[in-house]
Amino acid sequence: MTPQSAAEVHFDAHSYNVYDPACPSRAVLEHVTSRWGVLVLAALREGTFRFSALRRRVSGVSEKMLSQTLRSLESDGFVARRDHRSVPPHVDYTLTPTGEEIATLVSQLVDWVENHVPAPQTYTAPRD
Amino acid sequence: MTPQSAAEVHFDAHSYNVYDPACPSRAVLEHVTSRWGVLVLAALREGTFRFSALRRRVSGVSEKMLSQTLRSLESDGFVARRDHRSVPPHVDYTLTPTGEEIATLVSQLVDWVENHVPAPQTYTAPRD
Repeated sequence: MTPQSAAEVHFDAHSYNVYDPACPSRAVLEHVTSRWGVLVLAALREGTFRFSALRRRVSGVSEKMLSQTLRSLESDGFVARRDHRSVPPHVDYTLTPTGEEIATLVSQLVDWVENHVPAPQTYTAPRD
Repeated sequence: MTPQSAAEVHFDAHSYNVYDPACPSRAVLEHVTSRWGVLVLAALREGTFRFSALRRRVSGVSEKMLSQTLRSLESDGFVARRDHRSVPPHVDYTLTPTGEEIATLVSQLVDWVENHVPAPQTYTAPRD
């Protein structure tokens, strides 16, 4: 540990620590691993989406939760919102280059889960 | 699509789909990406932990939430709970081989976030 204050430590990218509840990295981790954050990031790897198309893709999300999720991911720098300032309005969402990186990792997790979930009926918990 | 019922589809590991709210893979994904699931999986990569040591490692988790998180991860087959049946009681938690796999992916995400979170004060959201 260098003799820095906690606030200064948080400015140094190499000292972020998700196990510290006060560390900003923990909030970012929670955005990308939130129920809808995961699915939104994975879906946006497929391309640019308008809000309503994204909502159909991420089945089950409410308008409110989708818009809250997009706002978090946008403020973290992972999603770019583009308003084409047209009539009728046309707004769409796409991954930023940083967003592509994190979305790739999130998708690996999603793919792994889809391919490794045991059929619940055949699974026996390892009890001793 | 093959002409299977939804229930049959869910028995085939290759047709799991996290975008389907009814698919069991979505529940598993939520366990591993939950606020505490992520941190517990990443922490258990460091070794076997007793409950109290794990609770100290995953700073900020309540007893109730840690025990709920461990139970989910155990029933998904990612964490093994061992009761050494000794006096005083000695119970510990460790990753299963499948748990090691998913925990590796989760840790990649954690590491990425710790290394890429911008200092919030210097970050400007991409608005057009």
